Amino acid sequence: MSKPSIPKGTRDFLPEQVSKRNYIFDTIRSIFIKYGYKGIATPVMENLSTLTGKYGDEGDQLLFKVLNNGDYLAKADQNALQEKDSSRLTSSISKRGLRYDLTVPFARYVVMHQNDIQFPFKRYAIEPVWRADRPQKGRYQEFYQCDADVVGSNSLMCEAELTCLIDEVYSALKIPVIIKVNNRKVLFGIAEVCGLHHQFSDFAVSIDKLDKIGQKGVLSELIQKNLPEEGIQRALHLLSLTALAPMEEALSSSETGMKGISELKEYHNYIDVVGHKNEVSFDATLARGLSYYTGCIFEVKAKNVQMGSIAGGGRYDDLTGVFGMKGVSGVGISFGAERIYDVMEELGLFEDEELMNVKAIVLAMDPESHKYAFAQVVAMRNAGIAVDIYPEPAKFKKQIKYAHQGKYPYAVIIGTDEQASGLLTLKNMSTGDQSKESLKTLIKMWT
Amino acid sequence: MSKPSIPKGTRDFLPEQVSKRNYIFDTIRSIFIKYGYKGIATPVMENLSTLTGKYGDEGDQLLFKVLNNGDYLAKADQNALQEKDSSRLTSSISKRGLRYDLTVPFARYVVMHQNDIQFPFKRYAIEPVWRADRPQKGRYQEFYQCDADVVGSNSLMCEAELTCLIDEVYSALKIPVIIKVNNRKVLFGIAEVCGLHHQFSDFAVSIDKLDKIGQKGVLSELIQKNLPEEGIQRALHLLSLTALAPMEEALSSSETGMKGISELKEYHNYIDVVGHKNEVSFDATLARGLSYYTGCIFEVKAKNVQMGSIAGGGRYDDLTGVFGMKGVSGVGISFGAERIYDVMEELGLFEDEELMNVKAIVLAMDPESHKYAFAQVVAMRNAGIAVDIYPEPAKFKKQIKYAHQGKYPYAVIIGTDEQASGLLTLKNMSTGDQSKESLKTLIKMWT
Repeated sequence: MSKPSIPKGTRDFLPEQVSKRNYIFDTIRSIFIKYGYKGIATPVMENLSTLTGKYGDEGDQLLFKVLNNGDYLAKADQNALQEKDSSRLTSSISKRGLRYDLTVPFARYVVMHQNDIQFPFKRYAIEPVWRADRPQKGRYQEFYQCDADVVGSNSLMCEAELTCLIDEVYSALKIPVIIKVNNRKVLFGIAEVCGLHHQFSDFAVSIDKLDKIGQKGVLSELIQKNLPEEGIQRALHLLSLTALAPMEEALSSSETGMKGISELKEYHNYIDVVGHKNEVSFDATLARGLSYYTGCIFEVKAKNVQMGSIAGGGRYDDLTGVFGMKGVSGVGISFGAERIYDVMEELGLFEDEELMNVKAIVLAMDPESHKYAFAQVVAMRNAGIAVDIYPEPAKFKKQIKYAHQGKYPYAVIIGTDEQASGLLTLKNMSTGDQSKESLKTLIKMWT
Repeated sequence: MSKPSIPKGTRDFLPEQVSKRNYIFDTIRSIFIKYGYKGIATPVMENLSTLTGKYGDEGDQLLFKVLNNGDYLAKADQNALQEKDSSRLTSSISKRGLRYDLTVPFARYVVMHQNDIQFPFKRYAIEPVWRADRPQKGRYQEFYQCDADVVGSNSLMCEAELTCLIDEVYSALKIPVIIKVNNRKVLFGIAEVCGLHHQFSDFAVSIDKLDKIGQKGVLSELIQKNLPEEGIQRALHLLSLTALAPMEEALSSSETGMKGISELKEYHNYIDVVGHKNEVSFDATLARGLSYYTGCIFEVKAKNVQMGSIAGGGRYDDLTGVFGMKGVSGVGISFGAERIYDVMEELGLFEDEELMNVKAIVLAMDPESHKYAFAQVVAMRNAGIAVDIYPEPAKFKKQIKYAHQGKYPYAVIIGTDEQASGLLTLKNMSTGDQSKESLKTLIKMWT
């Protein structure tokens, strides 16, 4: 028998990691709910007809496809089989795939359930997704996305509300962040007044890399793509503006640009009257790679850590058009739970208390005491206390080692004496201090 | 564009369904944690070498297999391709599959991480699994399992603890149940003293169907399998015993049977000293289909509902042997979340309060009031209150309809008057009663 293993790019998680991950997921989920977002659930397996063609050719390559059941070759494309053409054969032997993100399934869901849901519709989903990317450090084939979106309203209040939500999530996780805000229309306006808008997509893609490759890098990249140097230089100057007023002046000749400015102003009408703990800052260089964004865009960076963005999102004008339902505008945010985990590890933000699930472990010295100990444990649990018990009266050394390694904050030790007196030995596992306490006192202490 | 759809046997869930499902999952999870079980996580995709051969031929047929990425035909078994032999081709074009249950991944996990975890190891997992079963009412290709297991201890306290856990889960969900307990060794003892033990597996499979096909059905089924009628008749008599004492007497000549009796007695030493809200009852006819059980077995039936078992489990002697690690005994329980959902619907046990995630929705009458309303919402949320706001000052009729359909318990209505006076209109959505309240009062009322 060969040793068991798991597929490359996937992970097992130990209990401590699961506690930490659940702490992040639960924090985000509870705030989603607090803000009125509603949970929906979609299957892990979607029809490939739903998934393909939505993520570009590269994305299609990264879809995990599920083999049809039974005698799948009977219905296979015989020509493709003959010619051993894998990519042509696939659609005839596989009709299902694993979801690649939560956005396309959400769009599909909105279209299929448009008569069962209410618009504006606020939904959240915290679920795993799959991509057949080459596995590398920090990149996995199976990972979680944490998304909240509202569709069916153009109100800029939605953007303001998402900003508050981001602010609250990172405050709750104690990660200091800067929330960067821009508007794709402003970016387009900059391109337009500089004569670069005919290749806006190239422009946006390069700008997205500004903090990686610098102004020089952007310049040479865009010159290579045949954009005029003078225009690029001017755009780079405009991108450095950090206030809305001069930007408005510079974009006055661009209708789209002015629409972007007006959207940002309306956004500020909402966000400026409420407080937020983290810095919210306009950043004209924020571009976001994804081409479907059409309005405000967001990106969140952790302070004091070298790490890519740990949340991002924005407004899109046409989520569901690809499934035949036009005119559904929406805005959403996606939290990068895997990166948040890494940031919290690096900054030492996980607190033992939040992760320690039980208050104590009960250890018994002999078979008779063990039954008595079990009854004490049941009484504590009936009082609402999370508590563990070593399942047998093993050698004390073995049990106390287990209590240490399991990082239980307290051990409650029960032998003949404790059973006779009803006073249980309480041991603080970090200090080693011991005292005798009644069950009643322990219950009072832990509830 | 054809209308989007989802694969047969899979489901989308609407927000209300998700709330109900999460209520069940969260209740079970919190009790697992309270009892010291630790969450682990394993990938949805496992290597097919891990999955195949563990569920019998029939199970292997029901595994969903994931197509290898890239030019998978290049490495395909050329003979199988030539002969269009689907089942022989599969292993050369697919190396991963979707997990079929949580037990085999758990066994694989225990073996791979035996040096990272502490034995006895208590773990829980609440995750979806996949089976390519023919979809039918109440049977899905993607569904959740909720499992708790403890491995590495032979103590019967584990069985007693699981009984308490079952009792607490169903008490929390308000489902009255009967918890049936038996021991596979007792069942073997019955077979042995009746001369049926050489075909024990046939015997157990038929007994498992006793409440469906009756004594007559079992008799004819076992006669067909060439078991002696006299022995079967005697076994059916013994199976009707409901107390341990006469059973002990009847099994005195079976060493295995007596071991089973002694295990049940030790179990009672633990469970009888603590209280439980639901009936726990010895049932010699309880067999459990799965052959890997070797000791105590459990099954839970909801009272007052026609429904199969809503939880089941038992002790197994060799969880990890198939992955090369011998001698790991364990005992586990699996809750049938999908059936629990159906039972709770049928008995009307979901309470609106538990499912309603937000306290109120705020509605504003005009653009100016809307900004003020947003600030009130932010203040409420900062005070910890879950509250929603209609994202734009739409026509009042539209907003109030939204509030009704969304089943919000309260609406807070804000117009020019409310903004001027600071007294907000509070409308009870079920009674229609209205009053004027300050933000402070509302915060006090909802915290």
